[in-house]
Amino acid sequence: MRLVVTGTIGIDTVHTPRASREGVSGGSAAYFAASASQLCPVGVVAAVGDDWPTEHSEALRSFPGLCLDGLESRQGSRTFSWGGRYFEDVNRRETLFTEVGVLQESPPRVPESFKSAEFIFLGNTHPAVQLGFLDQFPHRKLVVADTMDLWIRTAHGDLSSLLKRVDGVIVNDSEAAELTGLRSAVSSAQRIMEHGPSFVVVKKGEHGALLTHREGRAVLPAFPVEEAGVVDPTGAGDSFAGGFMGFLARENRRDFNALQTAMAYGTVLASFTLESFGLDRLRALKPGEIDSRLRQFQAAVRVS
Amino acid sequence: MRLVVTGTIGIDTVHTPRASREGVSGGSAAYFAASASQLCPVGVVAAVGDDWPTEHSEALRSFPGLCLDGLESRQGSRTFSWGGRYFEDVNRRETLFTEVGVLQESPPRVPESFKSAEFIFLGNTHPAVQLGFLDQFPHRKLVVADTMDLWIRTAHGDLSSLLKRVDGVIVNDSEAAELTGLRSAVSSAQRIMEHGPSFVVVKKGEHGALLTHREGRAVLPAFPVEEAGVVDPTGAGDSFAGGFMGFLARENRRDFNALQTAMAYGTVLASFTLESFGLDRLRALKPGEIDSRLRQFQAAVRVS
Repeated sequence: MRLVVTGTIGIDTVHTPRASREGVSGGSAAYFAASASQLCPVGVVAAVGDDWPTEHSEALRSFPGLCLDGLESRQGSRTFSWGGRYFEDVNRRETLFTEVGVLQESPPRVPESFKSAEFIFLGNTHPAVQLGFLDQFPHRKLVVADTMDLWIRTAHGDLSSLLKRVDGVIVNDSEAAELTGLRSAVSSAQRIMEHGPSFVVVKKGEHGALLTHREGRAVLPAFPVEEAGVVDPTGAGDSFAGGFMGFLARENRRDFNALQTAMAYGTVLASFTLESFGLDRLRALKPGEIDSRLRQFQAAVRVS
Repeated sequence: MRLVVTGTIGIDTVHTPRASREGVSGGSAAYFAASASQLCPVGVVAAVGDDWPTEHSEALRSFPGLCLDGLESRQGSRTFSWGGRYFEDVNRRETLFTEVGVLQESPPRVPESFKSAEFIFLGNTHPAVQLGFLDQFPHRKLVVADTMDLWIRTAHGDLSSLLKRVDGVIVNDSEAAELTGLRSAVSSAQRIMEHGPSFVVVKKGEHGALLTHREGRAVLPAFPVEEAGVVDPTGAGDSFAGGFMGFLARENRRDFNALQTAMAYGTVLASFTLESFGLDRLRALKPGEIDSRLRQFQAAVRVS
């Protein structure tokens, strides 16, 4: 198993202006893994409670290359659960409820078979927990962490330690701004790099993503989609991260050029995710669809 | 004169969070022409009042290739004047005052020497006035209009007629949304195309620009700049349009591939404009700077 993601598997309730869905298989690690598995085998380290439906595990296992050996099912615990509502402006949403459940318990164990992984994605959680995961991968070659602004207020010391030990960070633009006090994506990414990572990816939702790296900058718009094509944006950012890491793990590379191409794969995977609720669109991907959309994207951003 | 812009020359007062400037040479036609002239000779059709400082004309004439033969100076009239204040989020600004002055009088005359122009940019003004300008260019090959949401409410019929007679439209994302009731740039651009133009460019400020065309779509991010590098965003959108049209006129092309490359030139010219108040940065451009930044941009958006 070259690529492992640690993070959250959960049950979502999603309301969009046009439809609602309850009990959707969600969580950042689910979206990450479903995307990454399109490019490279990936192992998931996460915990769920006894309310987690068997069919959700089966649905995840139906992704070829997605390994659930690290999914701990805990009796007497509740699965993480999130409910949210999107506005007409799909870049805006409000959280209706969050039940942390199993997330407030001890972190899931990393299976022995995963410990040889070289590409590690530390999904968002307390930075001390992320550090604990990191130490369990002695063969790590590229460690990328998702983080959020919350930890700068509640776990500043641990976050600083984490930033010194990861190769890269992926954040939302609003989180990057909150973390650094700088509004522009370029400036906030540069500032985060000063704390340790060799690269930072700032995700800007429908406005694309920026990569700052010691060797240069890359910037891409989102894949252009019509309004009617956006069914549910939940998990698009996590799918971006999955496509990004999946490409790097598949190619076994971590140089600037590879990171730049990985951004395009992330963009393409995210563009599929928002075409359905949950993982439906990713599950329905046919051979060649990713390459075909990648070529479309390439043509759309061409500068000759 | 292959390229002509009709529009507004004015005097701006600009407040940014870090500095203020009064009496800056501004107006959309000024920014357009200063940018376009970097690529191709350009003629300006506009009117000013007797309060227009001679040194502002001299400053405009200092751009090689910028021809002011169509700048009418009217005794007893006042120059258009605008004052605005930018917030920390430079994508947001408020208008402090607008004195329309000469803009409420009859439109400026098009000099005979300009009437052979093939590439015409109709800067934002009442669509009936834009139609009047259009008719004066019998050799027109590519006509692009800037427009705004105001006209849909106050001059719907004239705007419809205009859209049927232009090849392309350039609008802001907020204006495109207001014009069509559709929030996404892709959807609103598609909708505007249904009214006549063969292409639509939607400018999204710091989030780049989108081109929809009968033959395809192109999408580019803005040139990535650090927060401290943005001195004054005034005129960036007009400079984009100038770079866009200047490239097409220089190459004497209007095919999809040329429009896509023109977007990149627009992006680069806009990125220079916001590095200073007014036209200072454009005036200071050295040979090779545009090509060099274009190559940087090309490298930053590469999808391999």
